[in-house]
Amino acid sequence: MDKIRIGITHGDLNGIGYEIILKAFADAEMCNLCVPIVYGSPRAAIYYRKNLNLTTNFKSITSATEAEEGMLNMVVCIEDEVKIDVGQPTEEGGKAAQVSLQRAVSDCKAGLIDAIVTAPVNKKTIHSEEFPYSGHTEYFEKEFGSAGDALMMLVSPAMRVALVTAHLPIKDVASAITAERVERCLMQLRKALKRDFLISTPRIAVLGLNPHCGDDGLLSEEEQTVIAPAIKAATGKGVQCFGPYAADGFFGAGMYSQFDAVLAMYHDQGLAPFKALASGEGVNFTAGLSVVRTSPGHGTAYDIAGRGVADENSLRQAVYVAIDIVRNRRVVDEASANPLKVEPVERRERPRRDFAENAEIAE
Amino acid sequence: MDKIRIGITHGDLNGIGYEIILKAFADAEMCNLCVPIVYGSPRAAIYYRKNLNLTTNFKSITSATEAEEGMLNMVVCIEDEVKIDVGQPTEEGGKAAQVSLQRAVSDCKAGLIDAIVTAPVNKKTIHSEEFPYSGHTEYFEKEFGSAGDALMMLVSPAMRVALVTAHLPIKDVASAITAERVERCLMQLRKALKRDFLISTPRIAVLGLNPHCGDDGLLSEEEQTVIAPAIKAATGKGVQCFGPYAADGFFGAGMYSQFDAVLAMYHDQGLAPFKALASGEGVNFTAGLSVVRTSPGHGTAYDIAGRGVADENSLRQAVYVAIDIVRNRRVVDEASANPLKVEPVERRERPRRDFAENAEIAE
Repeated sequence: MDKIRIGITHGDLNGIGYEIILKAFADAEMCNLCVPIVYGSPRAAIYYRKNLNLTTNFKSITSATEAEEGMLNMVVCIEDEVKIDVGQPTEEGGKAAQVSLQRAVSDCKAGLIDAIVTAPVNKKTIHSEEFPYSGHTEYFEKEFGSAGDALMMLVSPAMRVALVTAHLPIKDVASAITAERVERCLMQLRKALKRDFLISTPRIAVLGLNPHCGDDGLLSEEEQTVIAPAIKAATGKGVQCFGPYAADGFFGAGMYSQFDAVLAMYHDQGLAPFKALASGEGVNFTAGLSVVRTSPGHGTAYDIAGRGVADENSLRQAVYVAIDIVRNRRVVDEASANPLKVEPVERRERPRRDFAENAEIAE
Repeated sequence: MDKIRIGITHGDLNGIGYEIILKAFADAEMCNLCVPIVYGSPRAAIYYRKNLNLTTNFKSITSATEAEEGMLNMVVCIEDEVKIDVGQPTEEGGKAAQVSLQRAVSDCKAGLIDAIVTAPVNKKTIHSEEFPYSGHTEYFEKEFGSAGDALMMLVSPAMRVALVTAHLPIKDVASAITAERVERCLMQLRKALKRDFLISTPRIAVLGLNPHCGDDGLLSEEEQTVIAPAIKAATGKGVQCFGPYAADGFFGAGMYSQFDAVLAMYHDQGLAPFKALASGEGVNFTAGLSVVRTSPGHGTAYDIAGRGVADENSLRQAVYVAIDIVRNRRVVDEASANPLKVEPVERRERPRRDFAENAEIAE
């Protein structure tokens, strides 16, 4: 099996993108695990390397087809001098992030890379008429799926959390939580756990929407009218899902350790406890798309940009997770490419569940 | 100084209330730290003691005036046989919780106890025409303050979190967050940190309302239009407060360790990460009232009631925190009972900030 080719976008030029990329690939082992291909600006890379006293070498190439094993490759997306304003949101920084992202997406579609790891962008400076998305997730959904396909997941050694709603104002959350949407997320999450994480029968915990799950209807009723019916419907379709659980008690009692994933209703409900426990190891994964896309669990970190104190661990974990998912998908897809033909009834007139289940894993 | 007298309500009869009370006071040291006075039903206590193989002794008394040092006292609030349905919400269980609570409140007003620690109740079964409150906090606010005085705080060795909105459905949260309310909470929180926790110049972190603090207005604007002005106003009144911070990044980066308290906008935003990190040590404290009231950070736990596996640690911590706060208030109140008269201008015509600050601590 060829080495997996990981495309890495440089993100916002003025954030900690180059610092964490150069730090993560300072270790030669990282360049042996995969073929890393940064979509970037060699001048920006050299600027940060010099200012931060880093020694990581990279090879500039004009196309991903030239990428070599055993080293950090950089596809030159921006040849000219770029203005770097460390720690500042600038139009130029946003534009550079967009160029890198679009080149990586185009190469991925052409089969030149197997997965994309994205360094953080500034959602405001990258936003433009050409790039009218509220974030990476929405852009990848447009390029590699259709509306509603993408499911935001956070992954750490301790737990996996997926979100029914992600980048939505709090005032719009309650009305966006519908039984159909929760059920669809449960189906997507099960599929991702099976194909991307090789868990054959995943167990999923579902959180409630309101404090204390609405206190049994005393406070609010979405748990009974929306979430419980969605759990029931998904259970009917074979998803092993349980809940709804009150978020504070669930995390407080460490119940996440008993499930393969947690489905949270909104951003901070899932991500605040996830990140509190992940200690910088959290990785963001956009499930549900044909592309494998991961990213570190932090933002541009303007406040510490250029100071040499950024922690590259989350980016390194994002590369590991991307490699694992590409491998897992290959295993599943190969195993189910030529399934034994499933006979409806066996010789002894018992349904042949064993083969049926193997075939189902690829759904 | 006399030993501090801690009133303890038995909470829901069918939950883990008696189990954690009997376990916490099995240790003789706990009965020496304070004078513990349970408001309860000796028959229920004996039922749980027998079924759970516990050995804690207690002395039944008819009034808190008879309480003795060095032992667990129990004011008999319910003399008759009570029906216990372990792990079930029942009307009788709710009624018994209410009787205990009302007797403790009445004794506290009469000066017979110095603080109240409440075991968990079932909000639905305790709710009645006689007790029309959505929880302990609202009841204590009515009895020991006026509307808007109570501030829900969670306290652990790692951090303190206070909530702008507590038991409110998610759909109503955004409209309830006003600049006036956030500012009032900041003033209340500072006062509590000074008088109840003896922190002379507390530093407070304020969380945003929306994911990523609204992404600089791209997503939503409450951070700029509501929260930032409240922080500015409170700063103008001398509160050291900072933010707003995005909840996930704040907890992920461990920033809570740099502040004396965190002000969260709503229940799960503050409590899910707090409890995830507190590992069962979290204590709930109702700040802003004349009474000192704490409780364990968990609920009735019907699912494990009667099985002997409940952890009494949070109740024990609730007793410790109550004792500390009563002591701290005495220290502050005594120190500021007869302040030096503050002259507006010193001999050298410089405002006498030093004395002014000492006087201010009691505000």
